[in-house]
Parts: sequence; C-alpha cells; structure tokens
Amino acid sequence: MPAAVTFDDVLAAAARIAPHAHPTPVLRSSAIDALAGCRVSFKAEHLQRTGAFKFRGACNAVWALTDEQARRGVATHSSGNHGAALALAAASRRIACHVVVPHGAVASKLAAIAAYGAVLHRCEPGIAAREAACAGIVQATGAQLVHPYADAAVIAGQGTAALELLASAGGPLDVVVVPVGGGGLAAGTALALAGAAPGCRLVLAEPSGAAETRDSLARGERVTDFVPDTVCDGLRGTLGQPGFEILRAHGAEVLVVDDADTVAAMRLAWQRMKQVIEPSSAIALAAVLGHPARFAGLRVGVVLSGGNVDLDALPWATAA
Amino acid sequence: MPAAVTFDDVLAAAARIAPHAHPTPVLRSSAIDALAGCRVSFKAEHLQRTGAFKFRGACNAVWALTDEQARRGVATHSSGNHGAALALAAASRRIACHVVVPHGAVASKLAAIAAYGAVLHRCEPGIAAREAACAGIVQATGAQLVHPYADAAVIAGQGTAALELLASAGGPLDVVVVPVGGGGLAAGTALALAGAAPGCRLVLAEPSGAAETRDSLARGERVTDFVPDTVCDGLRGTLGQPGFEILRAHGAEVLVVDDADTVAAMRLAWQRMKQVIEPSSAIALAAVLGHPARFAGLRVGVVLSGGNVDLDALPWATAA
Repeated sequence: MPAAVTFDDVLAAAARIAPHAHPTPVLRSSAIDALAGCRVSFKAEHLQRTGAFKFRGACNAVWALTDEQARRGVATHSSGNHGAALALAAASRRIACHVVVPHGAVASKLAAIAAYGAVLHRCEPGIAAREAACAGIVQATGAQLVHPYADAAVIAGQGTAALELLASAGGPLDVVVVPVGGGGLAAGTALALAGAAPGCRLVLAEPSGAAETRDSLARGERVTDFVPDTVCDGLRGTLGQPGFEILRAHGAEVLVVDDADTVAAMRLAWQRMKQVIEPSSAIALAAVLGHPARFAGLRVGVVLSGGNVDLDALPWATAA
Repeated sequence: MPAAVTFDDVLAAAARIAPHAHPTPVLRSSAIDALAGCRVSFKAEHLQRTGAFKFRGACNAVWALTDEQARRGVATHSSGNHGAALALAAASRRIACHVVVPHGAVASKLAAIAAYGAVLHRCEPGIAAREAACAGIVQATGAQLVHPYADAAVIAGQGTAALELLASAGGPLDVVVVPVGGGGLAAGTALALAGAAPGCRLVLAEPSGAAETRDSLARGERVTDFVPDTVCDGLRGTLGQPGFEILRAHGAEVLVVDDADTVAAMRLAWQRMKQVIEPSSAIALAAVLGHPARFAGLRVGVVLSGGNVDLDALPWATAA
C-alpha cells in the first residue's frame, strides 16, 4: 500500500507528465445545458492519448521510476484502459510492459494494448486470478507493479485532469462529477479540488450494479464482497484502500446510476455533442441529468473519462 | 438561377452569420497523420449548430432576406441536414419555415427539423416530387425558396467554413478536401480558396454510386440522368448549375470513393478521433487515406461536414 498522497504529488505529476500527455479541451454544449438546467463544462479525457484519463496516472508512475527500476519494466492487470495507458507510457520511456487481461475483456481495448507494444498475458476473470497472474510476472521479471488505482503515483496522475479542468472552465466550479470504480480518478480529483478549489464539491457517479463505494463510505469500511453487474466495464473494480482513505478524509457524495440511464446519456453525448464516450464516462453525465434539483443553476464540471467503445457491441444494440 | 457568386459574397456571408454560427475548431490526430502519411487539419463542422456545415448557408440566406421577404417565411426540400439548418436559421430570425422531406429520410434528421420548429411536409422520394411539392408551398404561402445548394447565398455561406479552416490551420495548406453532392460546399470552398489561398488546390470526394460531378466536369456539361446508390445520404443530390459553373471555372479534382472505404474511414474517425461523423463527411477522409501518393507529405485540410447519424442503423451493422 502506498504512503499518503498529497496535493503536492498532484502538482508534481502535472509537471512530470506534461511532455507526454495531451492538455485535453473543455467542451460545452448549450443543448445539454438546457436539458440539465445547469452549466456543464466537460473535461474531454476521451481525447487523451489512449482514449482515456488513465494515461495520466500510468505516465506519472512510469516516469517516477528510477532508471534502475525502469530497466526491469512495468506490469499490471487491467480490463482495458489502464493496460493501454501503461503500455503507451512504457513505450514513451522505451521500457518493457506486461499486461494481464481477463478472458472476455473488450476486444478493441486488447487490440490497443497490443498495438502499443505491451506483452499480453491472459488469465481467468476475477480480481483474485488477475492479481495472482500479475504477481507471478512481477516475481519472474522484476518488473514494477503499477496497480490500476491502488497506487500513489497513479492517483496523483489522475488528479491532474481536475487541475486542468479548474484552470480551463472559464470561471469557478461549484461541483465536479467523476465516475468511480477503483477510486483512482475519484481520489486524485479529491486531492486536486482540496488543494486548488476548496469550495468545490466532489460528486462520484457509481453504477447501481457496482455501488460498493457508496456502501463503503456509508459504513466507514471497505466493502469488497460483491459481484459487479454493470455495462460500465471500466467501473467494475473494487474501491482500493488508498482511494477509500482519501475519499473518506475529503468527503465525497455518491450518486448511484442505473445502466439504462447511463446508456441514454451515452447516446445523448453521441447525438448532441458528436463525441464518442464510453458507458464508464457517460455515467457522470447521467448523474447530472438524473438529479436536476441537486445541480440546478450550478457551474458543474464533468470528467468525460474515456471513449474506448467496441463499435460492434453498442449497449443499445445488445440490449434490444 | 442565381447571379454569379464571388469571393466578396463569401466574406459578406462570414460577417452576416458570425452572430449565429459557431466558429468550429480545427482538430488534429497524430494517429491519422501516421496512417495517411500527411498532415491533416480537420475542420469540425459536425460540431456546427444543427450538426453540419449546412447551417452556414441557410443562415446566410435567411439573414440576407429583406424584412418584407422574411415576413412570408422560407421553404425548402431537403433529406435532412439542410432542412434542419434552415429550420434553426429561420428560428433565429423568428420567421416561418416549411420543409419538404421525402418518405424514407433518416429518422433522427426529421426529428431534429421538427424540434427546431419547422413545419414538415412529406412527399414521394425523388427530386421531381420534392421540387413540385416545394413549389406548391411557395405559391401558397409566398415563402422564399432556399434551395439546398443551387442558391447564391447558400453557396457563399458554405464557403465560410474554408475561410475559417485557412485561418486556423496553423499555417498554409496545400490542398483542401471536401465532399461533393449538390455542390454548395464544393463551390463555396472553391471561391474561398481562390480568394484567400490561391495556391491551395481543391479536391472533391464523391461516392462511386453518385459520381456525376466527376462526369459533369469531364464532359463539360451537367450529367443529371443518374440514380444515386450510396450510403452517403447527404451526397445523393445532383450537382446544381451554379455549383457546376463555379467548379468548372475554378478547376477541381474529383476523387471517387467506394462506400466500403467511406464506412471504414467513418469507423476510424469514431475509434481514433472519438468524433461522431456521418458517412457524407467520412468520404473526405477516405479519399485522403485511399490516395497516399497524391497526398504524401502535404498539408491537407479536410472538412468534416456533418455528424448526424441514425445510431440505430449504423452502416457497418446493416452491412453485416
């Protein structure tokens, strides 16, 4: 488990990844503002390299390694976006990357990981099998494990998206909404807001079929015995210990969203904004649209976390 | 038929529509540059109001009317994007708008036209039935006909997209590629390039199933007896007389593209750029990807003309 992560780590990450990551734009849509009844600034992380914010954390972790650590490469287990992000981050430093992926992962995401030059290692689904396979690779190669979210450097890197959003939203924000799965983005955003915009509230959007973050924060201890059931393939992970501690310390409100509302929000973003975002991103927009009283008249930041979709298996097609 | 359209008309249109139209961004993609072997600057007209460049021409036509003309409203026939564009342009001046649409037009486009407040009039498919229905409405209401492309104000308005592209591409362009259907965008772009960047070549991308612009320019007279067969629903119209004359005078190279290549380019834009563009837009990217020797090393502008897609009938799904 990592040592405590601080706002200074987020600032250091911003400087470290600046030569490698895109400063993504902030998008507006008058049509969506009218539907939502508030002013929404979208941080377009689906336009980040590898198509997701995950590149920020992976890049920070890779470039924070000593030369000696880097020489042995990096390894991770990831159902998709973090794997691709770590693969490209490793390529940017010309070091080896091993990625453990479960059978049944999204095809387009696996293809991206391989295209960035990483070695794919298949395993059975389930977090235990993935962690065991990854541990074996780390032992055999000496590679540095870069966990998708329970990692201090990863959390600090994810926080840089919120830093940029605050700087480019054209004025202060009342609230920032991000999706929560393992908690890397959520925790990084909490740190960024606490340091750069302490008056801005953090709202987490979580699938009703994987709502253990809500339960964990309500109980005051991590809930880990659940089986995720959601179309949001990026949000099936379990809230990690460091994310849990940061979110509990900073305070975060959780809005739980049904998959049907997430899919409707995804269609809306495609149709009205012409932006390809994945379900794990659309859930944040769905949370805003589903709670008009909560957000009425506010200046809302929404992190569109990624846009890696299997175009042959769109959720409204498979649901029909 | 309109009087001759000039570069000054394009400049006047840019000033006239500025309070109403979005100055759309210019997008870049290193992944697509690498695939294409050239430097592509995409003019993002799918992010224009109503989701297509058509708003430029319609807006110019509506705001060029005298008050007395405007009082009687406007009318047009359009399978989609021009109809929506004219409806919103008319709404911006608070005047009536009548739109004749053929049975079988794309559902999402009809819904947009109605949502902007226009009156829909259904007719049989085919240009003759559409023109007859529209003439009847013009006679009954005194509305001003705003033809989708054979109209001087529309052509001048469409040319403003290229003006903005030239100004925002971060340097000179060697060539600009636009799709061609009725020829409004193509002719307006020809005028803009001739006036603002005379060294920049114009390339037109045309579906192989509706390649009458290539044939018309080759023969020196308009070919009008053809039945379009293409997935590019925005490019099924026949090259208009004013567009033909402007394109013949300025010189334009036509690249003919098969639908399969257009659909592949559309998928590529969705996957790598995360931008929802329609087939009638993707054809311009397909033309670049399909002729690597023609564009090798050049600075290429591509107008992404629109992004209005029926998400329930994606071309790769229906082709399967």
